[in-house]
Amino acid sequence: MARTVLPGGLRVVTEHVPGARSAAVGLWVDVGSRDEQGFDPSSRGAAHFLEHLLFKGTARRSARRIAEELDAVGGDLNAFTTKEQTCFYAHVLDTDVALAVDVVCDVVLNGVMAAEDVELERDVVLSEIAGRDEDPEDLLADDFDDLLLGEHPLAGPVVGSEESVTEMSRDVIARFHAAHYVPSRSVLAVAGNVTHASVLEAVVEAFGDRLTGGIDDGWVRPDTAVVVPTPAQRLAVRDEDTEQAHVMLGVPSLRRGDPRWEAQLVLSTVLGGGTSSRLFQEIRESRGLAYSVYSAATGYSDLGVLNVYVGCAPDRLGTAAGVLRTQLAELARHGVTDDELVRSRGQLRGEYVLGLEDTPSRMSWLGRRELEGARLPLDLTEALARVDAVTSADVADLAADLFDTPVTAAVVGPYADADDLPDELREVAG
Amino acid sequence: MARTVLPGGLRVVTEHVPGARSAAVGLWVDVGSRDEQGFDPSSRGAAHFLEHLLFKGTARRSARRIAEELDAVGGDLNAFTTKEQTCFYAHVLDTDVALAVDVVCDVVLNGVMAAEDVELERDVVLSEIAGRDEDPEDLLADDFDDLLLGEHPLAGPVVGSEESVTEMSRDVIARFHAAHYVPSRSVLAVAGNVTHASVLEAVVEAFGDRLTGGIDDGWVRPDTAVVVPTPAQRLAVRDEDTEQAHVMLGVPSLRRGDPRWEAQLVLSTVLGGGTSSRLFQEIRESRGLAYSVYSAATGYSDLGVLNVYVGCAPDRLGTAAGVLRTQLAELARHGVTDDELVRSRGQLRGEYVLGLEDTPSRMSWLGRRELEGARLPLDLTEALARVDAVTSADVADLAADLFDTPVTAAVVGPYADADDLPDELREVAG
Repeated sequence: MARTVLPGGLRVVTEHVPGARSAAVGLWVDVGSRDEQGFDPSSRGAAHFLEHLLFKGTARRSARRIAEELDAVGGDLNAFTTKEQTCFYAHVLDTDVALAVDVVCDVVLNGVMAAEDVELERDVVLSEIAGRDEDPEDLLADDFDDLLLGEHPLAGPVVGSEESVTEMSRDVIARFHAAHYVPSRSVLAVAGNVTHASVLEAVVEAFGDRLTGGIDDGWVRPDTAVVVPTPAQRLAVRDEDTEQAHVMLGVPSLRRGDPRWEAQLVLSTVLGGGTSSRLFQEIRESRGLAYSVYSAATGYSDLGVLNVYVGCAPDRLGTAAGVLRTQLAELARHGVTDDELVRSRGQLRGEYVLGLEDTPSRMSWLGRRELEGARLPLDLTEALARVDAVTSADVADLAADLFDTPVTAAVVGPYADADDLPDELREVAG
Repeated sequence: MARTVLPGGLRVVTEHVPGARSAAVGLWVDVGSRDEQGFDPSSRGAAHFLEHLLFKGTARRSARRIAEELDAVGGDLNAFTTKEQTCFYAHVLDTDVALAVDVVCDVVLNGVMAAEDVELERDVVLSEIAGRDEDPEDLLADDFDDLLLGEHPLAGPVVGSEESVTEMSRDVIARFHAAHYVPSRSVLAVAGNVTHASVLEAVVEAFGDRLTGGIDDGWVRPDTAVVVPTPAQRLAVRDEDTEQAHVMLGVPSLRRGDPRWEAQLVLSTVLGGGTSSRLFQEIRESRGLAYSVYSAATGYSDLGVLNVYVGCAPDRLGTAAGVLRTQLAELARHGVTDDELVRSRGQLRGEYVLGLEDTPSRMSWLGRRELEGARLPLDLTEALARVDAVTSADVADLAADLFDTPVTAAVVGPYADADDLPDELREVAG
């Protein structure tokens, strides 16, 4: 791994991957949907809208030319926006790295954001939101976040709402770009068959005098405490005419880089991280209650969320909720067994190694680690050493802490209101 | 690439991938949902149900032990069933290849298929079907297939229906297993940091005397001609209270391995295969009509399907359908431009190379090529040479042929019946 900080603060990190014939190029900006709240009340969805709009053309390239240049070499060009980060990336053959760097930087730096393109792309984003609104699991995740996070800036979907996107002005989007897309908050990450020197050369060429542009006002994302929901706020139901009952429940948990992060990885793995996990075995294998059941731990800069999901037949929701309650209580009381600890270490080791085999995954690791600073392990060796250092006592202590907080639950399914739900579910979200 | 045919007919194909630290192991069986139709009228969904059931335990391993053995080494163990193939696979670190071969073969050969597990897994499959029924794009694909394929065995969802799965007996599933899971119709494919000799040793050990078991009755899947739908069968609408109108339209096209297959790849790429494609540019970039629009070409052993998908606001369906009609007519009349031909060659070259970087993709290539015989190109070099040999005239001739057939269209959205649809759509499906 090689790293250079250029004048103006842009960080360039590269990794040469032996044997690869490709490279992944990502330009990461330390901004996401949560940063809209402090920016402008009318900007919910601006980070994501901006990501769309930048592909509509630059001073040097039309939208069509951007698409044609990457398609002509069989490259994949895309972008994604999360609650805290935005990434523009290309996956190309190793012969086309300079082109990929040039196009990705051009899009991010030189987007024209023409008024007519704002109108066209508004319709595209509204179509994306409409598609999302048809997916009960997406609606469920939004409802759960709203309950658990309340007024916290992390609440609310990244894409914004139909209302906010309909109202969004070009001015707000352009100001959001100017305020947040600055070299000092950006990282260019490349992994694959590349040299650091050739990437640096391409970046300097692509940025030109923009390398020292933008405002480095020492911006730091403020931490915001999460307010634990009151009992009345801990259970929500959305009445939808779905085939299944969809349930998500969970608790606030660790921020990214918390010293106990790896203990939480083990905890979530044992709870619902694979086919040998407690939830998969108890919900699906032993009882046939559901096709899909899992747990997930997500970390942000100031807090985290640990949750579980089950989708089951509406008449079996009570049974499923009873199993969830028992399993969470059991973990809180007794932690994990030694067998489970050993197995989860092996599982995480394999997942890390297999998950870092392709160049886009390695590029993402590089980019995220650089943005998130000291919070992530330096490399695979350190990541695995941290996992191996976790003890049963660490996991038991964490489980007792986390599940001491009342559980919050959201349901999407054929239920008129919370009184319609089985007792077992009301008892979990207590 | 190395290949051995063992006594009994099991084919073992391996590829050593330099630099890989992992391996992907796949046991492929030449059977899928289409083969249920000739087997037993009550067996729709049996191939997929069987795939589920085999993981519920073998003579040597319980379901829990199967899950624990792979999770303990961080491996990924899963399976999928298509209309013509079933594959059981594991993705593991290179140190665990022998274990992966042993577990995958054990599951496929020695599944107990206990009566109580049939009942448990019936509920899991019903839950999977219920989840699918909540997705308008899945429903749309089923409706389109039903229209276009009619009574052809390729019609109907792989998972079966709620009714067929509810009725499915253990006896039908077990007979399906005995009839179709024979060494002579199976392929064991491995790609990664492996030697052919060590894989062979593990396979011979895992199969034991089953290597020559099963019945090789010279079974060959019968070709079935597709009956071109009558005008009344060329348009269907499913009234759903969705946010968007979902449209799929297309024509019967080339079987896998047709000499014109690569011309069709170029045609589909130019039509809707990337962000520079005609449909993406005309539907999304120029008019903002939809977030999601694409074309796809699928090949089976006796026929193929070329189709396009758009999801748009219901009040813009007429405009979108008009653009589709114009674009299909334009392709049928004039084929593709020289620029498009050159660009699509580069695009396909990049997609092939980037799509074969990980060991699971290479394993799939090996397994599918072996099952599909001479139909697929031998390797990447041959695949790219075939693409480069395509001429503008080849594509124009093919487009004229394909779009000479009337277009079939299915719609899912807020429309009571076909009379509710905009005229432009009724004119496309003519």
